[in-house]
Amino acid sequence: MINDQSYMKLALDLAENTEGQTSPNPVVGAVVVKEGRILGMGAHLKAGTEHAEVHALAMAGDEAAGADIYVTLEPCSHYGKTPPCADTIINKGIKRAVIATSDPNPQVAGKGIQKLKEAGVEVVLEVEKERADWLNRKFFHFMKAKTPYVTLKSATSLDGKTATVTGESQWITEKEAREDVHYSRHTHDAILAGVETVKKDNPSLTTRLPSGGAHPIRVILDTNLRTPLQAKMLHDGLAPVWIICGSDNDEQKVKQYKSLGAEVIKMSHSSISLQEMLNVLGERNIQSLYVEGGATVAGSFVKERAFQEVIMYMAPKLIGGKDAPTAVGGTGIANINEAIALDIISVEKAGDDLKITARPKEAF
Amino acid sequence: MINDQSYMKLALDLAENTEGQTSPNPVVGAVVVKEGRILGMGAHLKAGTEHAEVHALAMAGDEAAGADIYVTLEPCSHYGKTPPCADTIINKGIKRAVIATSDPNPQVAGKGIQKLKEAGVEVVLEVEKERADWLNRKFFHFMKAKTPYVTLKSATSLDGKTATVTGESQWITEKEAREDVHYSRHTHDAILAGVETVKKDNPSLTTRLPSGGAHPIRVILDTNLRTPLQAKMLHDGLAPVWIICGSDNDEQKVKQYKSLGAEVIKMSHSSISLQEMLNVLGERNIQSLYVEGGATVAGSFVKERAFQEVIMYMAPKLIGGKDAPTAVGGTGIANINEAIALDIISVEKAGDDLKITARPKEAF
Amino acid sequence: MINDQSYMKLALDLAENTEGQTSPNPVVGAVVVKEGRILGMGAHLKAGTEHAEVHALAMAGDEAAGADIYVTLEPCSHYGKTPPCADTIINKGIKRAVIATSDPNPQVAGKGIQKLKEAGVEVVLEVEKERADWLNRKFFHFMKAKTPYVTLKSATSLDGKTATVTGESQWITEKEAREDVHYSRHTHDAILAGVETVKKDNPSLTTRLPSGGAHPIRVILDTNLRTPLQAKMLHDGLAPVWIICGSDNDEQKVKQYKSLGAEVIKMSHSSISLQEMLNVLGERNIQSLYVEGGATVAGSFVKERAFQEVIMYMAPKLIGGKDAPTAVGGTGIANINEAIALDIISVEKAGDDLKITARPKEAF
Amino acid sequence: MINDQSYMKLALDLAENTEGQTSPNPVVGAVVVKEGRILGMGAHLKAGTEHAEVHALAMAGDEAAGADIYVTLEPCSHYGKTPPCADTIINKGIKRAVIATSDPNPQVAGKGIQKLKEAGVEVVLEVEKERADWLNRKFFHFMKAKTPYVTLKSATSLDGKTATVTGESQWITEKEAREDVHYSRHTHDAILAGVETVKKDNPSLTTRLPSGGAHPIRVILDTNLRTPLQAKMLHDGLAPVWIICGSDNDEQKVKQYKSLGAEVIKMSHSSISLQEMLNVLGERNIQSLYVEGGATVAGSFVKERAFQEVIMYMAPKLIGGKDAPTAVGGTGIANINEAIALDIISVEKAGDDLKITARPKEAF
Ligand SMILES: [Zn+2]
Ligand SMILES: [Zn+2]
Ligand SMILES: [Zn+2]
Ligand SMILES: [Zn+2]
Repeated sequence: MINDQSYMKLALDLAENTEGQTSPNPVVGAVVVKEGRILGMGAHLKAGTEHAEVHALAMAGDEAAGADIYVTLEPCSHYGKTPPCADTIINKGIKRAVIATSDPNPQVAGKGIQKLKEAGVEVVLEVEKERADWLNRKFFHFMKAKTPYVTLKSATSLDGKTATVTGESQWITEKEAREDVHYSRHTHDAILAGVETVKKDNPSLTTRLPSGGAHPIRVILDTNLRTPLQAKMLHDGLAPVWIICGSDNDEQKVKQYKSLGAEVIKMSHSSISLQEMLNVLGERNIQSLYVEGGATVAGSFVKERAFQEVIMYMAPKLIGGKDAPTAVGGTGIANINEAIALDIISVEKAGDDLKITARPKEAF
Repeated sequence: MINDQSYMKLALDLAENTEGQTSPNPVVGAVVVKEGRILGMGAHLKAGTEHAEVHALAMAGDEAAGADIYVTLEPCSHYGKTPPCADTIINKGIKRAVIATSDPNPQVAGKGIQKLKEAGVEVVLEVEKERADWLNRKFFHFMKAKTPYVTLKSATSLDGKTATVTGESQWITEKEAREDVHYSRHTHDAILAGVETVKKDNPSLTTRLPSGGAHPIRVILDTNLRTPLQAKMLHDGLAPVWIICGSDNDEQKVKQYKSLGAEVIKMSHSSISLQEMLNVLGERNIQSLYVEGGATVAGSFVKERAFQEVIMYMAPKLIGGKDAPTAVGGTGIANINEAIALDIISVEKAGDDLKITARPKEAF
Repeated sequence: MINDQSYMKLALDLAENTEGQTSPNPVVGAVVVKEGRILGMGAHLKAGTEHAEVHALAMAGDEAAGADIYVTLEPCSHYGKTPPCADTIINKGIKRAVIATSDPNPQVAGKGIQKLKEAGVEVVLEVEKERADWLNRKFFHFMKAKTPYVTLKSATSLDGKTATVTGESQWITEKEAREDVHYSRHTHDAILAGVETVKKDNPSLTTRLPSGGAHPIRVILDTNLRTPLQAKMLHDGLAPVWIICGSDNDEQKVKQYKSLGAEVIKMSHSSISLQEMLNVLGERNIQSLYVEGGATVAGSFVKERAFQEVIMYMAPKLIGGKDAPTAVGGTGIANINEAIALDIISVEKAGDDLKITARPKEAF
Repeated sequence: MINDQSYMKLALDLAENTEGQTSPNPVVGAVVVKEGRILGMGAHLKAGTEHAEVHALAMAGDEAAGADIYVTLEPCSHYGKTPPCADTIINKGIKRAVIATSDPNPQVAGKGIQKLKEAGVEVVLEVEKERADWLNRKFFHFMKAKTPYVTLKSATSLDGKTATVTGESQWITEKEAREDVHYSRHTHDAILAGVETVKKDNPSLTTRLPSGGAHPIRVILDTNLRTPLQAKMLHDGLAPVWIICGSDNDEQKVKQYKSLGAEVIKMSHSSISLQEMLNVLGERNIQSLYVEGGATVAGSFVKERAFQEVIMYMAPKLIGGKDAPTAVGGTGIANINEAIALDIISVEKAGDDLKITARPKEAF
């Protein structure tokens, strides 16, 4: 069938497939249609390059005059690296714009729609809005909060252990779940691990999918600069390494990391405040943060209610052990009624493992 | 997730949305990917314009060198209106081509794949092949049979009636089913009705979807040239009208229709042979024929086993009446074991109506 | 889990499995429970024998005192072939009665509930009511209308034909659909066919299931007493045969049928009025009538809106033919807006065939 | 529909609803059918009372001669508290017996089937066998192993915690999950908790369902007899309390518990061996054990691979805390490849909570 829904679904498919490659821009898809014939289609592919509308209108060429455009996000109205899409739409003679959701960016916020209307373009809003909003949840959160959208990830046995009592933890989940984790790395701007995890596992924290993928910036929470100088991450050159540390660290030590190419970001106090760190990451345009490493780190994010999404992989295994580590450590809460209530969004199979996605019942 | 399947699904989504606008060419989608980042996407939009690969590679630009391309159909290898896509893929430096299904067109038939391989491009075949084959079933049938893929459509009450005993038939099914019919008109090259239907209903047989759509060529089966000169179709100018008639018709009469812009196509005998007609339509590049009008006409196609797909809409109504007309008329079969066995592909709801799609158990 | 729902579901399972064997009584199941332990379970198995409650209470024995009883239908309160179940429940010392639905029978109608309440039994109503109502739809219809619940059955090809133009019709549907028909015969009191069907097919109209089943009373619509004296039905002795005829038939002829054991029921006019026939069947306690034979007969029931359910089996076949017979014949309606609107209750597979169950959108 | 499957499903429904009330006997249902008419139905309701076949045959009365019987488990062939059902079936003149699964009880083991066959009864085996086997999994395990079927239960937050770091744990899951736990208590012969749980929570470990239910025997694992003399369980009189202790305990102390009505069962060594305890419980005819209380206890069962089923309730909450307790404690395993692989049988919703049921991939 062809109708407003079918064209918008195509535009959303275009956008969805570009998750992970457009940051700090949102994912956007566009389709140009005249009399039931698609004239152009496109998605925004990379920050600094053409917006979705520009690709779709270029493909349509002169035929765009009198056509409809379907866009998953309100067209931009301000001069950035490219001229405003709202203007381009008007100049091309588009007569009707169907828009899935409006832009939360205060620089845009309804101005694109306004401009189109004033130029006589018929505007239809909120077609497939829910899917469009979910698709850009990270971008929207960032625009509002100015701090990254935080996704907490864990991989445990069914009884909630991340390792045995001796600390052995490799390969709890199977291939499918692990590939899914790599896809999440691909779709987040940055990944965060605590220094303990770096010392213990010496992970690379890169994206290793059969078809490649974007490496996230690697952020190490390291109050006292204890990251080993020979850590793999500091030498592979695959993605930036940012070390977040307290205010009391010796400049000499800082230099050592810098000489290896890492950035060292000092907080204002001797201990690290998560909120300050998120503010700093936000200032650096990190829109999404994947928190993968370390129970203590996860515990802090949970305790400070500093997350928007939780993805838990559970292997169908029992490990047991009073002292076997769990996914969310730290000091925890004292009273059970302080527990953070979640909405379970989905329970899926990832190979033989379970994947549970949830988010806080009430946004923080 | 991003992998070969996800990229091919996107390419197939691109192709699927162009159904009805590419004939006589197949629908094709293409996606260019490097290291997990989409560089370009495109579909073939209209015969005589760029192929899907060209759009996708153009969007990718110089970055295409070293990338993978996902195409829903084997790239062309011959010079047509555009240079061969296989050459373009090679020239752009693509290192890996993932292809859903090979081209049945004898001019192409494996030659595109051959060319790519000889140039050192890694070729992966049959990713999402089943969906790709179904998507181009009309094109593939035509390439093999040189006659159009025939879809029989009916709209009846649950008790199989197309009208009451008095012949009243308007609006048996509801809006959703009727829009679905218009979408089928959009995705077929031609639509066929018998002269009795033309005389009785004076239909326009055009595509009337909220968002437009392509009008099929209107073919009237009219052995003795009894189509009324004032028939709507002959005057609306919305799509060609082809009148198929027997060999004995008076040239004077033929001229009258021609003067109204219709084509009159005389068969070689005084009565019309379906097979001859399908051959003639095939020669004229009609790849798909939607048989919508008239029980007698439908009866002939069924009796001669001259169809590839059946779409039956059933309204949840009872009409009754021994003499109330049914969808498939004509002389019918004599023995029940000559009945044509079908495979039911799907039973769906179209609004409150049922839509049953089937095809012959054994291809004719 | 054990709770009111789980016990009532068990009682409904008990009742459901006795469909076809309790007429003219409804199907009823009962379960007696004390402190989470089932003490007794039972169903009404045959008219004239113990009611469900009696079976369940007998199994419970003295332990019934202080227990709960779950019954799918309001317990009877009048003296029939057995003493009133409401009294038995009270006498056994039941302290709580959970009842799925109340009895439409004017002799009972709330009186059973009333009696229980007056005796101090706690009464809970409408647990699983919807399923209980559907289960006894035939009984409930009969109680209200005093005429049988009529189920129209057809078996056609996908194009709505019951036979070829030459009339050949055997085995349109496959084994599964045919067994399902036999189950419907088992669950109806009587089956009706027109004399034309009897003459043409000489059917036995009995229930032939692997595990047996009840034979329905065979009713022949035969205005002018043309049923062949050698008809199989008149000689197999498997179930009564009732011949419905007009008022003008010769007594001599009538005697011939009577001598073969059939009953001949004369209507008050020379032609048969469906309504009069249904009244007569109702007076004879026929609560459900399965109309299986003949397009003309089906056409009359449809035209007179004299049915409560439609079951259509469709074989995935095309037969075609303007003169091939269809399921619903007769004179039919003249205006399409007189067509009878149905609600489709289910579309299922019966082997390779489709089974569509529907009922009139508005009860007649 | 009525056929072997439908009748066996009814017999299984009858059996399933008696789970929890038949121990140490299995759950069994029976249905007697002649020519498509149910003559009798019944289930075994309580050890020491009539078997399912006896109930069903009693309801059928003399009509049973020549009928079929459907039984969910091979009829018994030995004289116990009641005469052998195989004999009763033969004496009643049953001509065909359909049996879902054979009896693992060495006293029966094919002898019932043998007897029926020798008496000329036609025997059909393995109709709905899989469901029948699952239904009696506890009984079957016990017959083979002579030790109870062990079900481990846990209730945690999504991050695997059973309480906060301060130990506060009440009400982690919601009403539906808690009722489901009580249903499990109802369907197990005994429930086990460690002395630490008894000291900390002072639980009653009884079945509290809206409709009652059977209380399990309460087993306390208490090596050194530290169960408080004022523990609720020792005074409520609702079900037996068995205290399992080591060999070194003072007889004086033992007497104190005995005087409160509890049994004290001394193991042969100063520390308790799970295997010895399971043997002792098996000798005392405990066929199923629900392990509910305490991480240390659960840890022992996991470490010793002494369980057959795991039921995990997970509340959509995050608690966090390195030292917050988890469901499976103890010393745990050292190497990740010793983790116990499970098959997940189902993931369901219990209200807002998740319920995950699993069993060891390889039976121990
Ligand atoms: Zn823009
Ligand atoms: Zn090409
Ligand atoms: Zn009664
Ligand atoms: Zn027995």
